[in-house]
Amino acid sequence: MTPDPKALAFDVFGTVVDWRSAVIREGEELGKGKGLDVDWAAFADAWRGRYAPSMDRVRRGELPWTRLDDLHLASLEELLGEFGVVGLTEREKERFNEVWHRLDPWPDSVEGLTRLKKRYVITTLSNGNVALLTNMAKRAGLPWDLILSAELVRHYKPDPETYMMVPGLLSLRPEQVMMVAAHPNDLRAARANGLQTAYVPRPREFGPQGAQEAPDLSFDLVAEDFVALADKLDA
Amino acid sequence: MTPDPKALAFDVFGTVVDWRSAVIREGEELGKGKGLDVDWAAFADAWRGRYAPSMDRVRRGELPWTRLDDLHLASLEELLGEFGVVGLTEREKERFNEVWHRLDPWPDSVEGLTRLKKRYVITTLSNGNVALLTNMAKRAGLPWDLILSAELVRHYKPDPETYMMVPGLLSLRPEQVMMVAAHPNDLRAARANGLQTAYVPRPREFGPQGAQEAPDLSFDLVAEDFVALADKLDA
Repeated sequence: MTPDPKALAFDVFGTVVDWRSAVIREGEELGKGKGLDVDWAAFADAWRGRYAPSMDRVRRGELPWTRLDDLHLASLEELLGEFGVVGLTEREKERFNEVWHRLDPWPDSVEGLTRLKKRYVITTLSNGNVALLTNMAKRAGLPWDLILSAELVRHYKPDPETYMMVPGLLSLRPEQVMMVAAHPNDLRAARANGLQTAYVPRPREFGPQGAQEAPDLSFDLVAEDFVALADKLDA
Repeated sequence: MTPDPKALAFDVFGTVVDWRSAVIREGEELGKGKGLDVDWAAFADAWRGRYAPSMDRVRRGELPWTRLDDLHLASLEELLGEFGVVGLTEREKERFNEVWHRLDPWPDSVEGLTRLKKRYVITTLSNGNVALLTNMAKRAGLPWDLILSAELVRHYKPDPETYMMVPGLLSLRPEQVMMVAAHPNDLRAARANGLQTAYVPRPREFGPQGAQEAPDLSFDLVAEDFVALADKLDA
């Protein structure tokens, strides 16, 4: 019998917010203003496609510690070339790169988090850097108790240092923390470090025809969204 | 002409919350239950009196990094002896030590912070550890955007690493951060690291007859409480 969790640690990109729609929307706005003919859905998917490989370079030590904002910017520079986008100023590139600070929550996220906050400590546990997560939360109204980021330990998920940061900083035992994520690989790494796990699939993360990870129902909880998670956790 | 700040970093003990009243109140409750005859105001002042010296031992390297909760507990053990308090269980000591998680805000703190949050990023910048600050905020309704603590850089204020953490993690320049504190020494150290400064004296911090630091009106702003600070910062 596992204990009741005291704190819930949330993956953010894809789990709490919909990254794809905002990148497409802001890409289209940028493209209209500049007269560009770009498939922005393909651009969004390609940008996100570079996310894990770029962090893996840091995790393997091929790059020194680099904030996600800067990994995103390096990927953006490459993709602008690949997609034939020219004529953006440095300021326009920086502004577009910060679209990752302006992602919208899934429709249930704010309601579910607001309920869960009444009973549990709710924190991010994201590879996003602190500034990104802070700006996102203010814009989207995400009511975090605190912002925990890979940046604080200079390790990206799924390195153990990230998961262990949560019980360490909150003076809890690992099993008193429940990781909430839409991605089974994140949850399996959390479980390997002793955390409880809640799986909230987000079938629209990669778009209407997007690839799905194979379902994995081995986690402590499975809920269809954050409101259902609040129900299951009596919040 | 200094720029408008983007983020406000708050000292917590004494600036946002009244530590003395809660320590006295919980001491008295503990004492009644145990039939103890203790001057709990003197006890509170003595406990707080060990705060800076205990952190200085860490700052000088005489102690390895130690969380404030653990420094508080070591001081408590000593003071229980000095005040002749015997017969507390380990659990009772731990529970009393956590009174620092249960401090009440000054009457203007929540209203002022709530207004300031609409326009600025508001964060703690405290020597309190993350668990302490998180528990305090949930209990007291302090609406922080994020929790920044000496614990994250393993340096206590006034070490420069603490002040520089705020612009570093928020991707701001030092002058875009304003330190808010009731203690001129904290503000002078923040200023030496390039932060803006707002002085909010809390004349009741050390009780009705408590010692006052000499007033220092050299800071960028002086406000009598957080509501007045919100007025001055157009929040």
